[in-house]
Amino acid sequence: MKVQVGVSNRHIHLTKEDYIKLCGEKEIEVLRPINQPGMFVTKDIFTIKTEKSEIPNVRLLGPLRDYSQIEISRTDAYKLGLNPPVRTSGDLKGSEAITIVGPMGELHLNEGCIIADRHIHVTEDMKKYYHLEGKDKVNVLVGGEKGGIMFNVDLKVSDEAYFEMHIDTDDANAFMLKQGDIVEIIED
Amino acid sequence: MKVQVGVSNRHIHLTKEDYIKLCGEKEIEVLRPINQPGMFVTKDIFTIKTEKSEIPNVRLLGPLRDYSQIEISRTDAYKLGLNPPVRTSGDLKGSEAITIVGPMGELHLNEGCIIADRHIHVTEDMKKYYHLEGKDKVNVLVGGEKGGIMFNVDLKVSDEAYFEMHIDTDDANAFMLKQGDIVEIIED
Repeated sequence: MKVQVGVSNRHIHLTKEDYIKLCGEKEIEVLRPINQPGMFVTKDIFTIKTEKSEIPNVRLLGPLRDYSQIEISRTDAYKLGLNPPVRTSGDLKGSEAITIVGPMGELHLNEGCIIADRHIHVTEDMKKYYHLEGKDKVNVLVGGEKGGIMFNVDLKVSDEAYFEMHIDTDDANAFMLKQGDIVEIIED
Repeated sequence: MKVQVGVSNRHIHLTKEDYIKLCGEKEIEVLRPINQPGMFVTKDIFTIKTEKSEIPNVRLLGPLRDYSQIEISRTDAYKLGLNPPVRTSGDLKGSEAITIVGPMGELHLNEGCIIADRHIHVTEDMKKYYHLEGKDKVNVLVGGEKGGIMFNVDLKVSDEAYFEMHIDTDDANAFMLKQGDIVEIIED
């Protein structure tokens, strides 16, 4: 079955407390919604840094969460001198340390930096509809000049979801995929 | 059958004439050999640039060739605002324009910038030995956390070769491969 691609550039999730440290006491402003219900890119821009290097213009995704997390690509990781684990969102134990610089302050996290795993957003109903019941992971077929198959694509279940595969910019660039491209779930 | 991975960072090939324009009349100095027989990284460092951006510290690979070519990743291409085709080395018709800046001069190429295709260096004897006769392309299986299969891996035949699959940094980072890792040729 077909699924649409969403390409995730490096981005940040923050707790309310960490947001206040970085930006002060203010309301979060929406820059634009993303496909996942209720989620949005905010107007806030941060720099992420390590002793080796830094990357400016990193966006915060809203709404605020109960954990602070920085998702980067392996390309970014080399630039920053980090070796983050490949993880699902929120699984931060033993992940990499990183510093976030905001307009009102700086925040050092002892853990929180990961490479997000390849995942497909689904609801339980979608899993039934697409005959994916009982599966946690699938393989995804990509066509085109630099096509291939991605293994270990996590089926990420939530109560509300837009049916979409999220990959980072390394996967997108290696397979020559862009936001909105269509790929195919082939097996688990 | 197994094959070793070589990761190609962005790099340059030059003609003698273009080398002289960029570096003046001097001998090329070897920084270190690479696995392919007779090939080496030189001590020369260049900046590649476009109207949008530039990337410093790009290495020249020797020996000099009968064409000048710049191989970058799609990640680099976004940074430079280019859309280079995926090509085999030397197939430059209609490829992207780019400027190279060297210690003694600057060189604008109307074409020459490509994304190198995924390829495996082989001799005709190796193709026989590995039962790849008659095949031009193969698929390659990659294990690990971000494993999968790469399609369209070109079998690049030359008189002398070190049996090795060359991929760019996007493919390496997406599949979490490093120089010297082992992957598996599975079919054409």
